[in-house]
Amino acid sequence: VASLSARSVSGLPEVRAGDELAALIVTALDGDELRDGEVVAIAHKVVSKSEGAIVALAGVSPSERAVELAADAVAAGQDRDPRMVQVVLDESLEVLRAERGVLICRTRQGFVCANAGVASARRIRGGLRELTGASVAVLISDSFGRAWRHGQLDVAIGLAGMQPLDDWRGRTDASGLELRATWLAVADAAAASADLARVKDSREPVVVIDGLGRFVTDEDGPGAAELLRPLQEDLFR
Amino acid sequence: VASLSARSVSGLPEVRAGDELAALIVTALDGDELRDGEVVAIAHKVVSKSEGAIVALAGVSPSERAVELAADAVAAGQDRDPRMVQVVLDESLEVLRAERGVLICRTRQGFVCANAGVASARRIRGGLRELTGASVAVLISDSFGRAWRHGQLDVAIGLAGMQPLDDWRGRTDASGLELRATWLAVADAAAASADLARVKDSREPVVVIDGLGRFVTDEDGPGAAELLRPLQEDLFR
Repeated sequence: VASLSARSVSGLPEVRAGDELAALIVTALDGDELRDGEVVAIAHKVVSKSEGAIVALAGVSPSERAVELAADAVAAGQDRDPRMVQVVLDESLEVLRAERGVLICRTRQGFVCANAGVASARRIRGGLRELTGASVAVLISDSFGRAWRHGQLDVAIGLAGMQPLDDWRGRTDASGLELRATWLAVADAAAASADLARVKDSREPVVVIDGLGRFVTDEDGPGAAELLRPLQEDLFR
Repeated sequence: VASLSARSVSGLPEVRAGDELAALIVTALDGDELRDGEVVAIAHKVVSKSEGAIVALAGVSPSERAVELAADAVAAGQDRDPRMVQVVLDESLEVLRAERGVLICRTRQGFVCANAGVASARRIRGGLRELTGASVAVLISDSFGRAWRHGQLDVAIGLAGMQPLDDWRGRTDASGLELRATWLAVADAAAASADLARVKDSREPVVVIDGLGRFVTDEDGPGAAELLRPLQEDLFR
């Protein structure tokens, strides 16, 4: 019998550029000790804030294209600020689809951020180990929409100390039948679980997950980049 | 502070056609009582088995197309039984993409099964309520690959007594900023969480999730069909 539990961490202060997240998290835990094998899931937004990577919308001048795309969105019944569209365009390597107010972009996040994410996750992991002695994994999450399904799910965009995928391909179950699903995106599932352990407007960007020790590793490991489908395999194109 | 916990149910017997799943689950729980507001997540496979909807591969004759597609998969380094491909084709309304051994199909599951799923979920929910008195939600899950990411995640294909989406669109956070993610696929996140609460080859198709009471409803509700993007909005096309 396996089990999973996740608890949100309350009392984290408003994060500012230059803040050391590991220290803020340990303070907010307020004596609730981290244990070896736990996974600390952190919403991308506070990591970006601590790294000073937040864009002030007031300082953004939207291009003509951004104004047009925002107008398309408004025509499709959505509220869309042209400056926000400009930020998305700035962060995108390529716009794959733009229709009915929906922008599908290949973001730099997919590539740059999977690499930046691993650096942030490793640094925070190192800080938590130094401060608490515990060998935990750190997972940085962000929300994405899906091609075929409504709604958003959190996925892992940064990861240290956890295997991103659990590979059962080619293996069979106890009765010799091929397993139904054989290549599990465990880090993405963990990110989705963490998001259920907080109430949305509760300002609890950090969630500690227990019960995933079998995926937690001594080494920092490959990070979340392993979860990205290489461009040449992209099923969307 | 919110929290989430999930425990797998051990000791469920091999499920056979005609079995009443609610009764098998209550017996396997062995005194571990279901509580109001819990979510009982069940792997699709055992629901299909109980409903006699399992296909015996030995009785399947692959078509010429299935043999070709299986050969393509083998050429791409994958192990693929032509009879399995035939079953996939039989269950598909349309093959969107077939290359390098990957089949992308619009399955009847997306439409028929989202409707069949709601019926199964409602029946099992009713059975659990009758046997235990508890008002739980029932979620039937299946594993799917993703267009842009490696690995599979469980999603909800049948649902009763739980809202599939948590809609925060247009709402702002405590500081007046628009929320980062605003339309959460909570039923899919719950399905992904449940899959983390079992070891893959442990034959534990049933997981009980606590901590999602805020999404559990008295009414059976719309079911998992609400999670499907309508064909005309499909971002994959």
